Amino acid sequence: MTTTTLAYAALSADVPLAPFRFERRDPRAHDVVIEVLHCGVCHSDLHNARNDWGNANYPMVPGHEIIGRVVAVGADVTRFQAGDSVGVGCMVDSCQHCKACAQGHEQYCAQQSTYTYNARDRQDGSPTYGGYSTNIVVSDKFVLRVPAGLDLAGAAPLLCAGITTWSPLRHWKVGQGSKVAVIGLGGLGHMGLKLASALGADVTLFTRSAGKEDDARRLGADQVVLSSDAAQMAAVAGQFDLIIDTVPYMHDLNPYLPTLALGGTLVLVGYLGELDPMLNTVPLIMGRKSVAGSLIGGIAETQELLDFCGEHGITSDIEAINIDEINGAFERMLKGDVKYRFAIDMASLKG
Amino acid sequence: MTTTTLAYAALSADVPLAPFRFERRDPRAHDVVIEVLHCGVCHSDLHNARNDWGNANYPMVPGHEIIGRVVAVGADVTRFQAGDSVGVGCMVDSCQHCKACAQGHEQYCAQQSTYTYNARDRQDGSPTYGGYSTNIVVSDKFVLRVPAGLDLAGAAPLLCAGITTWSPLRHWKVGQGSKVAVIGLGGLGHMGLKLASALGADVTLFTRSAGKEDDARRLGADQVVLSSDAAQMAAVAGQFDLIIDTVPYMHDLNPYLPTLALGGTLVLVGYLGELDPMLNTVPLIMGRKSVAGSLIGGIAETQELLDFCGEHGITSDIEAINIDEINGAFERMLKGDVKYRFAIDMASLKG
Repeated sequence: MTTTTLAYAALSADVPLAPFRFERRDPRAHDVVIEVLHCGVCHSDLHNARNDWGNANYPMVPGHEIIGRVVAVGADVTRFQAGDSVGVGCMVDSCQHCKACAQGHEQYCAQQSTYTYNARDRQDGSPTYGGYSTNIVVSDKFVLRVPAGLDLAGAAPLLCAGITTWSPLRHWKVGQGSKVAVIGLGGLGHMGLKLASALGADVTLFTRSAGKEDDARRLGADQVVLSSDAAQMAAVAGQFDLIIDTVPYMHDLNPYLPTLALGGTLVLVGYLGELDPMLNTVPLIMGRKSVAGSLIGGIAETQELLDFCGEHGITSDIEAINIDEINGAFERMLKGDVKYRFAIDMASLKG
Repeated sequence: MTTTTLAYAALSADVPLAPFRFERRDPRAHDVVIEVLHCGVCHSDLHNARNDWGNANYPMVPGHEIIGRVVAVGADVTRFQAGDSVGVGCMVDSCQHCKACAQGHEQYCAQQSTYTYNARDRQDGSPTYGGYSTNIVVSDKFVLRVPAGLDLAGAAPLLCAGITTWSPLRHWKVGQGSKVAVIGLGGLGHMGLKLASALGADVTLFTRSAGKEDDARRLGADQVVLSSDAAQMAAVAGQFDLIIDTVPYMHDLNPYLPTLALGGTLVLVGYLGELDPMLNTVPLIMGRKSVAGSLIGGIAETQELLDFCGEHGITSDIEAINIDEINGAFERMLKGDVKYRFAIDMASLKG
């Protein structure tokens, strides 16, 4: 007994998203059937829908920042029951036996984790369809519990933008006394400020554009540095234990390396591609500094984030939209015109 | 009462090293006066003498892999006495009060450590002259103790080539169960193999040239991978916790990144400059990998290395030369024609 699902899908790279109807699978013994309530709109939704990365499969139903309510569970599911508030992020499965999976780093699964959309189910090979839809069926190991009291629409972006900044903050052991900088104030950047601040770090925002001071401070920054201002950059030389670089396009890392403290790390979470201009190794060697990368986060880590956000009352700043506004929202995202994440109210899809 | 010192010096960038005579300072209360017995020949001696880095001061007496015997000590020196076997490495002083110095990382001194040659003494501004000389006068904090039983000529390269590979091995916590690779089999590379192996790691050599198998295994490698062979490179995908890259010239890091394990680090110790071809961030992000740099090592760390080498009977493989062979040795180094370090027998300077 499959479930007929309403969705918005891209049917090819060059047409707008449009209404689409398909069947979700009958729940397996370990599956959770979730009514989608809210779905955050990630930059990668746009890139995937338009085949910017060359690996698109159509029809494609985007969406991997999913918050919903459990409506049914498979026979062997014990951790969830109907009515629970839950989340689903970028992954819905992984091999479960490689070293990365065994360590709870499913995002680095040696056999590649199964993405929430634009992938294939590991068991039956059917396409995975994401959260721009009325419901989703997900193996219980990849379903997250949403703490009571969190605004559900604002919680949706925690599943990607949140965990993508949380994972490096935790891996590099940020806490009281840490000095952290975030490059870029978008969906990821604004979560980086909130989370680093809540962890007790001293937090700086690097931005190219003036006028973000008030917002940055409200979001948790102790300091804002204009990266285009050489004097401001020189004033923070040798400061940061960790820099989280959220910029999603090609940019010059070299000006930031001198602002790392001895032993500090600049971690890229937004940009996949070649480092142009070329990275200069001198500041790395002269201060045992590192340039690293980090990809979303594991499932246990994501639950830890949600619990932390529940304790600290942290959600994303969102602008709620109806599903029929999604194509306009994509255009606004390309212009950076959103504070700081669109979240689709999925009730608009059923109406 | 200064000490007249015989040395070999570069008088300009374009002439061979030649005999030179100067006065060492009268020992201060904390100084140790050392008769130089052996001095290793580092690639940076050649680069500095020829002003390849644009910051040469002449006359220049190179040499920062110094082994000698204490002949006198200042009034306040308690840790050393005449007759002790001692070493001096790349640094003879530092500010002693910045955070790096306080942590024992004098090589990263915020006010720049004082290099053993081509620098200026912090107290009187006089030029520092290195170990291609009959004696040297050094503040006791920068004098290392050489354990009994170590071959003194073979111990000289520990002071730079040795500590440069030891510091990252220790910082990244290499030990039993670690998988380490070394890129390049020169002065640094051969020490990397010996030290990583003695620490209990499983050790691989990456090399561009066939025919190094026997030597590499003798030096501690468990495996040799031809970096020009795509099949051999693919066979070690995802293997290494730490790669120590000793290559001193521009080279492509991209083929090595996929051979790092999840969370692994490639640390550059030999190449100062721009990464051309451009570094691609995809393998960094897809496996939380890092590209880092590391510079020699601190004084306490260098003593730890010497003690470790004493316990394990580790020295550098050297070819002893007389001081009047130094210019020919420079030419052979440029061709990679040395196994694996020249060490000057300083008796040849007095004869």
